[in-house]
Amino acid sequence: MAVLGTAAVEALIPVAALIGIAFAMLQWYVVARVPVPSHAGDGSGGGGEGSKQGRGVRGEEEEGDEEDGMDYLLVEARCAEIQRAISIGATSFLLTEYKYLAAFTAAFAAVIFVFLGSAERFSARPSPCAYDPSRECRPALANAAFSAVAFLLGAATSVLSGYLGMRVATFANARTALEARHGVGRAFAAAFRSGAAMGFLLASSALLVLYAAVNLFGLYYGDDWGGLYESITGYGLGGSSVALFGRVGGGIYTKAADVGADLVGKVERNIPEDDPRNPAVIADNVGDNVGDIAGMGSDLFGSYAESSCAALFVASISSFGAEHDLTAMMYPLLISAVGLLVCAITTVVATDVTEVKESDEVGPALKRQILISTVLMTAGVAAVTFLALPPSFTLFDFGNDKHVKNWHLFICVSAGLWAGLVIGYVTEYFTSNAYGPVQAVARSCRTGAATNVIFGLAVGYKSVIVPILAIAAAIYASFRLAAMYGIALAALGMLSTIATGLAIDAYGPISDNAGGIAEMAGMPRRVRERTDALDAAGNTTAAIGKGFAIGSAALVSLALFGAYVSRAGITAVDVLSPRVFVGLLVGAMLPYWFSAMTMRSVGSAALRMVEEVRRQFDTIPGLAEGLAVPDYATCVRISTDASLKKMMAPGALVMLSPLVAGTLFGVETLAGLLAGALVSGVQVAISASNSGGAWDNAKKYIEAGMSEEARSLGPKGSEAHKAAVIGDTIGDPLKDTSGPSLNILIKLMAVESLVFAPFFAAHGGIIFDHL
Amino acid sequence: MAVLGTAAVEALIPVAALIGIAFAMLQWYVVARVPVPSHAGDGSGGGGEGSKQGRGVRGEEEEGDEEDGMDYLLVEARCAEIQRAISIGATSFLLTEYKYLAAFTAAFAAVIFVFLGSAERFSARPSPCAYDPSRECRPALANAAFSAVAFLLGAATSVLSGYLGMRVATFANARTALEARHGVGRAFAAAFRSGAAMGFLLASSALLVLYAAVNLFGLYYGDDWGGLYESITGYGLGGSSVALFGRVGGGIYTKAADVGADLVGKVERNIPEDDPRNPAVIADNVGDNVGDIAGMGSDLFGSYAESSCAALFVASISSFGAEHDLTAMMYPLLISAVGLLVCAITTVVATDVTEVKESDEVGPALKRQILISTVLMTAGVAAVTFLALPPSFTLFDFGNDKHVKNWHLFICVSAGLWAGLVIGYVTEYFTSNAYGPVQAVARSCRTGAATNVIFGLAVGYKSVIVPILAIAAAIYASFRLAAMYGIALAALGMLSTIATGLAIDAYGPISDNAGGIAEMAGMPRRVRERTDALDAAGNTTAAIGKGFAIGSAALVSLALFGAYVSRAGITAVDVLSPRVFVGLLVGAMLPYWFSAMTMRSVGSAALRMVEEVRRQFDTIPGLAEGLAVPDYATCVRISTDASLKKMMAPGALVMLSPLVAGTLFGVETLAGLLAGALVSGVQVAISASNSGGAWDNAKKYIEAGMSEEARSLGPKGSEAHKAAVIGDTIGDPLKDTSGPSLNILIKLMAVESLVFAPFFAAHGGIIFDHL
Repeated sequence: MAVLGTAAVEALIPVAALIGIAFAMLQWYVVARVPVPSHAGDGSGGGGEGSKQGRGVRGEEEEGDEEDGMDYLLVEARCAEIQRAISIGATSFLLTEYKYLAAFTAAFAAVIFVFLGSAERFSARPSPCAYDPSRECRPALANAAFSAVAFLLGAATSVLSGYLGMRVATFANARTALEARHGVGRAFAAAFRSGAAMGFLLASSALLVLYAAVNLFGLYYGDDWGGLYESITGYGLGGSSVALFGRVGGGIYTKAADVGADLVGKVERNIPEDDPRNPAVIADNVGDNVGDIAGMGSDLFGSYAESSCAALFVASISSFGAEHDLTAMMYPLLISAVGLLVCAITTVVATDVTEVKESDEVGPALKRQILISTVLMTAGVAAVTFLALPPSFTLFDFGNDKHVKNWHLFICVSAGLWAGLVIGYVTEYFTSNAYGPVQAVARSCRTGAATNVIFGLAVGYKSVIVPILAIAAAIYASFRLAAMYGIALAALGMLSTIATGLAIDAYGPISDNAGGIAEMAGMPRRVRERTDALDAAGNTTAAIGKGFAIGSAALVSLALFGAYVSRAGITAVDVLSPRVFVGLLVGAMLPYWFSAMTMRSVGSAALRMVEEVRRQFDTIPGLAEGLAVPDYATCVRISTDASLKKMMAPGALVMLSPLVAGTLFGVETLAGLLAGALVSGVQVAISASNSGGAWDNAKKYIEAGMSEEARSLGPKGSEAHKAAVIGDTIGDPLKDTSGPSLNILIKLMAVESLVFAPFFAAHGGIIFDHL
Repeated sequence: MAVLGTAAVEALIPVAALIGIAFAMLQWYVVARVPVPSHAGDGSGGGGEGSKQGRGVRGEEEEGDEEDGMDYLLVEARCAEIQRAISIGATSFLLTEYKYLAAFTAAFAAVIFVFLGSAERFSARPSPCAYDPSRECRPALANAAFSAVAFLLGAATSVLSGYLGMRVATFANARTALEARHGVGRAFAAAFRSGAAMGFLLASSALLVLYAAVNLFGLYYGDDWGGLYESITGYGLGGSSVALFGRVGGGIYTKAADVGADLVGKVERNIPEDDPRNPAVIADNVGDNVGDIAGMGSDLFGSYAESSCAALFVASISSFGAEHDLTAMMYPLLISAVGLLVCAITTVVATDVTEVKESDEVGPALKRQILISTVLMTAGVAAVTFLALPPSFTLFDFGNDKHVKNWHLFICVSAGLWAGLVIGYVTEYFTSNAYGPVQAVARSCRTGAATNVIFGLAVGYKSVIVPILAIAAAIYASFRLAAMYGIALAALGMLSTIATGLAIDAYGPISDNAGGIAEMAGMPRRVRERTDALDAAGNTTAAIGKGFAIGSAALVSLALFGAYVSRAGITAVDVLSPRVFVGLLVGAMLPYWFSAMTMRSVGSAALRMVEEVRRQFDTIPGLAEGLAVPDYATCVRISTDASLKKMMAPGALVMLSPLVAGTLFGVETLAGLLAGALVSGVQVAISASNSGGAWDNAKKYIEAGMSEEARSLGPKGSEAHKAAVIGDTIGDPLKDTSGPSLNILIKLMAVESLVFAPFFAAHGGIIFDHL
């Protein structure tokens, strides 16, 4: 038997979660010590001009590390005011979005109950267990009800994750800008601590809610672990459903504003990014918080919830479940618990042990975070594996038994963990302007936008190779050693350092916002340069974060796919069967259909934004000269309306595809569909994210004049720079709307199939059965 | 037994092929009656200026339908001269390319012989038959030798197809331009007849060579039909290998020149397309002939050869082969024979029955060709199916027997045929500027290049949906009815009207060239407007042709995949096996890797071209004013060098991937790899082709001022038009290099796997066997 007893396990998980929450609070507390006046004066009217002129003059002077003599009370007041505008915009958008989502989740919970209930004709009598018909399990009706409840719980936690993240970020943005006055190191610490607050809050509450749900559901289910963990999968579905709408809606919101603001502001009017004269600038900054922060938070929460559910489900039908070995059964949650502790140590290294002094130390500091957390986590996994697991046991392998040893599972988790590191480093190579690929993209701007786009697309395509090989290696190793359970563990391994991952991921949009606030509040140019340096590193970490999200999504959906196949009673998904093959082909098409919708939505919303921004510049007297205040609210409304309206169709595509495929064409076609969407969607997602990241940083490379060559391409406003801006704008919807939504597509379709598997197995395939 | 006897079948195939060749000759003869002076004066020096001024003045006048009084002897002489320059450039490039290919094919033939020979340790003794071990078949060494010979034969026929196509096209381009003086109808007839000459020449010789090879190989193989048709698959591999290098090399050549010419000429210097002052203009026109004509000819020949080989191979291991029913065995070739006759009738409708009078009748006339050939072919297939096939028989279905009726096969062929029609019509909808999608792309140019690119990408993604559903439906129907044989027949059905498909496909680049010649020879503006109208329809037909090529490639490679699986002795390709899944994932990545290489190659070659063109404008005095002749030869050399150098790496990727996967990771991983590359590559190829086509025609829509809206976006040189040119330039490598090469990638990897299957089955998988 395992060294670690049940009591220790029962204690470790909630304790680690509570430590995580306390750690998040601590970070928040440290950030909160940066004062921001709570009540801003209403100097907004003429402030634009005054502060712009102030900057124009003072920016030229050499300034010290501290304040440079400008009216810092006014600057702070303006910061507070802008922060409030952003915060109000983001909160009001999220609350509106969540209202829609509440209606959707209620309706979909009903769908779950009806479909799953009807699988056994709403019978309330105990039924034979799915994996051991000799025993009696809880009635299908109970599973239907508990699945619906788990779904609602997952949706609620996902909403909470997104909302809390947004609150942290809109709390931190102005503080980071203010800290940037005192040096890049303090600004970095503020942004990173805030990211960590969000990361730990999210990872801890995800773990805590799941742990609580398992224990509460267990009160009813007793020793029917099959039914218990089958219902729990609803938690993953709820999390991912909300994440889908969050990512798509937030992505459309932020990119409509961003593209619209850039097209008129940077290209036509030649005013800087985030200039307060641009009517779309508030919408743009709100977008960072609802898209990159709230959307991403929900997304990674979804991945985490799903991989935990997949691992728990497969464990429950393995010998862990059959023998009711609670310690082994809780292994997936134990990994996450250890991950929280490891990430806390890693964060302390960044915030308290080492110190960032110069702009060029930011990137390496963030990269070091990934490496440290990976190394420490490997040791943590080893410890928990050998302490909590029995030396050997039996796993369910599509109807067969598979005998594995505990060190096999250690390898599975580590394979995912290290594959994540490889993905992170490769993504950095292809999207950071410190390396060849982005520099080549920047160089191609010399001959115009067309070559820039061609080179950027090529970089995105090329960046797929190594991550796919890393994922394939992790899959092969863990699949061979521990079948689908191994895959689920690899996914959990990749996500085990999620708190650190989220910290460095959230850091980016916070810095981006800080830069916007610095610009709008009229801080000296030097401050803006510091936030720009943080932001450039943020672009790369955002790409790394997306790489993690996609890589883990691939593993998660494969694990869910395996669980679905098991639950649907399929023994082989044979490509040589016409049902499977057409599913595979059509599944591989879905990411394109989805991307067509989201790209077009961003494009048409951006067109409307462009028209509004142009209209304001043309009709508001004195706006171009900074003598009048633009009508920010209309732009916010355009983004909000476009986002809420346009998130329906892609959302419906993802939610309905598995239901239609399963109901009309049966479980085998659905299996093919999932596999096709997975293998195709991963490629589209990675290439889209990295092309976008490369274009963004190629532009920043030219703007920052980081080398002899970069200076020969610049400065801002040169032909090469204009070409770079076009590439950046094209990349916006690719990297922030389509790309990151695709990983939710592949996960969500898989978890939805798993939840509905009992229904499809009983009643699915009504068309193909007659052809 | 079948109604049609062996003798009738034996006669019908070669007779139909000979009729096809005669028909091609006839078309050529009609086109050749347009006189082009054989000896051009050397008025090249000052002609540039003279003719330009002539055009400048006369273009404004109203001119009659006939000559407008300008010196038509001079114009004809210049046409002849330009034609000769293009022809010499294209011939010299192809001969150089073929020299490289000769070395490659010789080496690869040796590889085939060594690998296949070593499967049975070079034993020259008869061995047990692969599918009936109780019987004795020809030794593996003989199969190795005949496979190598078939490979060389396929490669030679492919070279011939490309070369003949180029000769026809460079013969027809000037004649089309000269005919355009007399009206759009006569120009259309000249271009279309030339396309038909190429189409029939290619389809007929492909059929004839294959028929001859089967009969000649049969002299040795006698009744060992398994060995015979296994060796014959080398024919498909040879055809596709040459096609790969032809498409990639030709694609890089043409797009380096096109992109380079446009970036400096249209964007920087604001001179028209094909202006003789542009140093890259000859290279650009040569490129149309070596890329779009020769490359495409080789490509479709490859598809045709492979689908025939796949069908013959599967038939040989079915009851057709076991019972030595020659009539049934020849069914795949009979379909192609009937197709030739049907296409001849269809062509006569376009050239002699109906007449194109106005520019806007060109598109519908071409669309009608597809519809007529499809309807007639359905009848033809019905006739040959019920006449040549026994009423029922047994097919090989992965180790099982499958009983089918002859009308099942009729449905399989028709499914492919009509799926092709659907693909053609959908492609037209998404790439023709007569419909909404392209018009929306054009409209988005109002806000600049970035929105244009975003909308164009979205159109390409969206255009994938219906073709994939059509292919999936065809696959499901034919797979269910007749397993892999059904798929091969569906592919043959889609390709059965290849002669007409090639005619309307080749028509595009011929018109494009004609426009270039009209411009360079200084013909009146009106002539150029007519060739532009032909060319715009040509862009759409090119996209349709690519749609067919991709759709048929999907079916062909699935059929080849099935044949490979059978030959490798795999009974199931289960996605739930780690070996298969990692193959699937990595296979889905290969199209991205490949596209990264080709896109980057075009990009960097174009950069070099841009530098050279700029250099010439900067250093040759009087060039910009048309007083001096540019150095065309250097630009031709840049394209040639780039193309030959850069086609190696992508070629190696495609040729080596199956060898590496099969040898190191085994037959199952290779099966996964093929399926992954297929389902992912099809999507990338369709979206790339159609995005490119949409951008190209959005640009033409603005240039032609086809509607109130289009006029508000134009004219040439407006901001919106510049944005459209950027989109068009980005689309160039997507639609003419990466996209069309991808369908070769998926076919070639499949046929290569089939040819090497005996080796992989015997010795493959040396790494995974130890892991």
